[in-house]
Amino acid sequence: MSWFRNFIHLVKQSPPQRKPAALLAHSPPSLTLLLRHFSSTQIQSNHPGSRPTKGDEKPRVVVLGTGWAGCRLMKDIDTNIYDIVCISPRNHMVFTPLLASTCVGTLEFRSVAEPIGRIQPAISREPGSFFFLANCMGVDFQNHQVHCQTVTEGVNTLEPWNFKVAYDKLVIASGAEASTFGIKGAREYATFLREVYHAQEIRRKLLLNLMLSDVPGMTLTEEEKRRLLHCVVVGGGPTGVEFSGELSDFIKKDVQQRYSHVKDYIHVTLVEANEILSSFDDRLRVYAIKQLTKSGVNFVRGIVKDVQPEKIILNDGTDIPYGVLVWSTGVGPSSFVKSLEVPKAGGRIGIDEWLRVPSVQDVFAIGDCSGFLESTGKTVLPALAQVAERQGKYLAQVLNNVGKSGGGRANSATGLDLGEAFVYKHLGSMATIGRYKALVDLRQSKEAKGVSMAGFSSFFIWRSAYLTRVISWRNRFYVFINWVTTLVFGRDISRI
Amino acid sequence: MSWFRNFIHLVKQSPPQRKPAALLAHSPPSLTLLLRHFSSTQIQSNHPGSRPTKGDEKPRVVVLGTGWAGCRLMKDIDTNIYDIVCISPRNHMVFTPLLASTCVGTLEFRSVAEPIGRIQPAISREPGSFFFLANCMGVDFQNHQVHCQTVTEGVNTLEPWNFKVAYDKLVIASGAEASTFGIKGAREYATFLREVYHAQEIRRKLLLNLMLSDVPGMTLTEEEKRRLLHCVVVGGGPTGVEFSGELSDFIKKDVQQRYSHVKDYIHVTLVEANEILSSFDDRLRVYAIKQLTKSGVNFVRGIVKDVQPEKIILNDGTDIPYGVLVWSTGVGPSSFVKSLEVPKAGGRIGIDEWLRVPSVQDVFAIGDCSGFLESTGKTVLPALAQVAERQGKYLAQVLNNVGKSGGGRANSATGLDLGEAFVYKHLGSMATIGRYKALVDLRQSKEAKGVSMAGFSSFFIWRSAYLTRVISWRNRFYVFINWVTTLVFGRDISRI
Repeated sequence: MSWFRNFIHLVKQSPPQRKPAALLAHSPPSLTLLLRHFSSTQIQSNHPGSRPTKGDEKPRVVVLGTGWAGCRLMKDIDTNIYDIVCISPRNHMVFTPLLASTCVGTLEFRSVAEPIGRIQPAISREPGSFFFLANCMGVDFQNHQVHCQTVTEGVNTLEPWNFKVAYDKLVIASGAEASTFGIKGAREYATFLREVYHAQEIRRKLLLNLMLSDVPGMTLTEEEKRRLLHCVVVGGGPTGVEFSGELSDFIKKDVQQRYSHVKDYIHVTLVEANEILSSFDDRLRVYAIKQLTKSGVNFVRGIVKDVQPEKIILNDGTDIPYGVLVWSTGVGPSSFVKSLEVPKAGGRIGIDEWLRVPSVQDVFAIGDCSGFLESTGKTVLPALAQVAERQGKYLAQVLNNVGKSGGGRANSATGLDLGEAFVYKHLGSMATIGRYKALVDLRQSKEAKGVSMAGFSSFFIWRSAYLTRVISWRNRFYVFINWVTTLVFGRDISRI
Repeated sequence: MSWFRNFIHLVKQSPPQRKPAALLAHSPPSLTLLLRHFSSTQIQSNHPGSRPTKGDEKPRVVVLGTGWAGCRLMKDIDTNIYDIVCISPRNHMVFTPLLASTCVGTLEFRSVAEPIGRIQPAISREPGSFFFLANCMGVDFQNHQVHCQTVTEGVNTLEPWNFKVAYDKLVIASGAEASTFGIKGAREYATFLREVYHAQEIRRKLLLNLMLSDVPGMTLTEEEKRRLLHCVVVGGGPTGVEFSGELSDFIKKDVQQRYSHVKDYIHVTLVEANEILSSFDDRLRVYAIKQLTKSGVNFVRGIVKDVQPEKIILNDGTDIPYGVLVWSTGVGPSSFVKSLEVPKAGGRIGIDEWLRVPSVQDVFAIGDCSGFLESTGKTVLPALAQVAERQGKYLAQVLNNVGKSGGGRANSATGLDLGEAFVYKHLGSMATIGRYKALVDLRQSKEAKGVSMAGFSSFFIWRSAYLTRVISWRNRFYVFINWVTTLVFGRDISRI
């Protein structure tokens, strides 16, 4: 135990003096300002995962983000050729299509979260591969470096600190941000449904409101009770519809039994400015509306003007009081992507047919943060998991080939043939609508002809498709077990 | 959808005016003050779970608390005789013996939490039975009423409100509080291990520190890295020892593989003023120390004097720097119990042989909050799950018999025979020490002779004993599945 005695001793002699880390504003400042700031306060560390790679080391691929795109890429990258450094504020991938199910206890939170170390074990085992819990604040394309800041939320004794990581190849897969179209109060009072902690928050609010609405007291009028138990979903895309379906399922099956005193007070309303599930076949949309209405979901056509702590206000002046408000009106570019000084495509990082950022060397962008430049003649692809996943898979292949041809090192791949360009083939859309029913639309696009179906058989396809897609065997197993136990024992309602 | 149109309409005309609830200090004020406060601001509501029961209704048992004692009582109470109203700040029971395992991902959090509605379904189904999410602030023994305040943490739009609940029989099972012996900073910087959210906090801190210690930067010196990854446990009772064992298991098996870059920096230290596991057989204690030392746990004999954000200071002046600090030095009376104006036994609510609070009518106390009065000639029982559980079981039987004899209503049981007095028979103690090893001490007391054993066979007994004790089949099933998957796939390390 010599380390221990030394440790204790050392500390007794001279308590560690932490250098106060420079404080950075939360929203990334302009890049120039940032770079100046960094160069004045930061000394390049000698960490094996951050200094430029040397001749006898593997070249380093730095991946920003742990979503569908980044994780699929890391899974497929050949770790005999490259070291991987992943930088992200979260150490797991979220299996987003199943997130709505966790809010009401159909699935456990852990079942839909896959740790990076399980997706790519090299990250925790190889001496040159790392995962850094941090946000990327800017990229110095000239010097092949990314500038980052650690995420220390939850540790009182550490201020966030800045550090730089040198890359041979950089893959930006940092995703998009939930968009609120600048509507006042939305970010403050509504909950998104993109991360596991969002689902946890929705679940806690829902169960808390269910319990509180049952407690005696003069404060709680009948209207107030109805308000507390009114779940309002803004946005009629797949996420909003799936959440409404799960919620009405939960109300029909579990609230009736386990909160029978307040069962007549709980309701679900879906607010959408246009059509729900606009990308789906018309027949499927009609079916979905019919089924969800049958399950008790109210549809309101309207544009939200203002969000207040207890109600939303529509453009036509209608007030809709709520107890739980979920916001899923799509995504837009993140402030990090906005701050990057590269050509954009619809606000996203502009890429060519090989997913490269053509204005700079050795940089690629995939997933929701990227879009084809006009010069490619291709349209910007929708922000879908399957697009991101396909791009990650494709790019891993490209990088592996480049590495094998000796172009892995920084500035060494100019002139190399990258092989065939990326082509996206839409495999169809799926959405569940509760009550063991789902929609499956296998058409290539909204105009194309093709198979579309709805009902229990689709539900079965939907569940099987997801079961085989959840990445690790551990989580496949857990999702299956969760579904079976929900079927047998009902949903879990403990509020922990 | 007429409710919806009325609802929306109503709200448009006159937005609900919430009456601001009276603000109460967080620590319960003196009872007299409280009663005056209540009577001036609170009108008795007409809620079917709170007004005094009428002749055609079932008598009402009010249970304060959802620990081992209260839950076992509620499980066994005959709901054909009584309505149950349970008042607690948490809607589930925590299976405390397995809580330490959830911190490192051996078990899922949900597997150790059992919702009250599953323990006693009548609470969510019977028209006169309820669960109220609230703290009890005081008891008006004269008028057979408890005074409560809702727990609204997590709802921004509702102030906590006060309400009264009338009882026919009152069972106080509100438990004890973690004690810190008045040591400065302990409550502020250490984490207890008594609730699911404690385990979640420890887990989050541990995984965060593991990840941060791997990030490059000048801030992170070698000592600082050692500090971040130094887990210090204060208190060598079963909880502290089990947690240390689980933690060293986690380090040996999972950190080595999944955080191999920092595996040499993580250590566990157990600080105890006296002997560890003082209630166990000496042979078992020696065995435990040997095994835990082999797993890498450091033992420090000392008394903590001061807790600071980054270190604890012992009486002899030694500093022990820490990254995660877990506090498990036993329990003491809660401020609610202290505020009750009834005779006490060692700070706890004084009870007689039938677990009654003899100075008042129709009031019982069980579990950690109660202790035998000197007049009974019995000693105050230890604060153990098995004591609480046995008392809950016994009291349910007594109350069922009283109810059958027509004494269920308030003030109607005087002179009734309560049957045999409560006798506690110690079934032995068990504790796991990691590495598939456990201690089982089947002796009646420290001085008695009897079987005690240690090793894998005890581990097997320990796991089986717990599997059959976890209350619902759903959780038995999940605990089993969790154990199997941990064995096959390793522990889960996603930080969600």
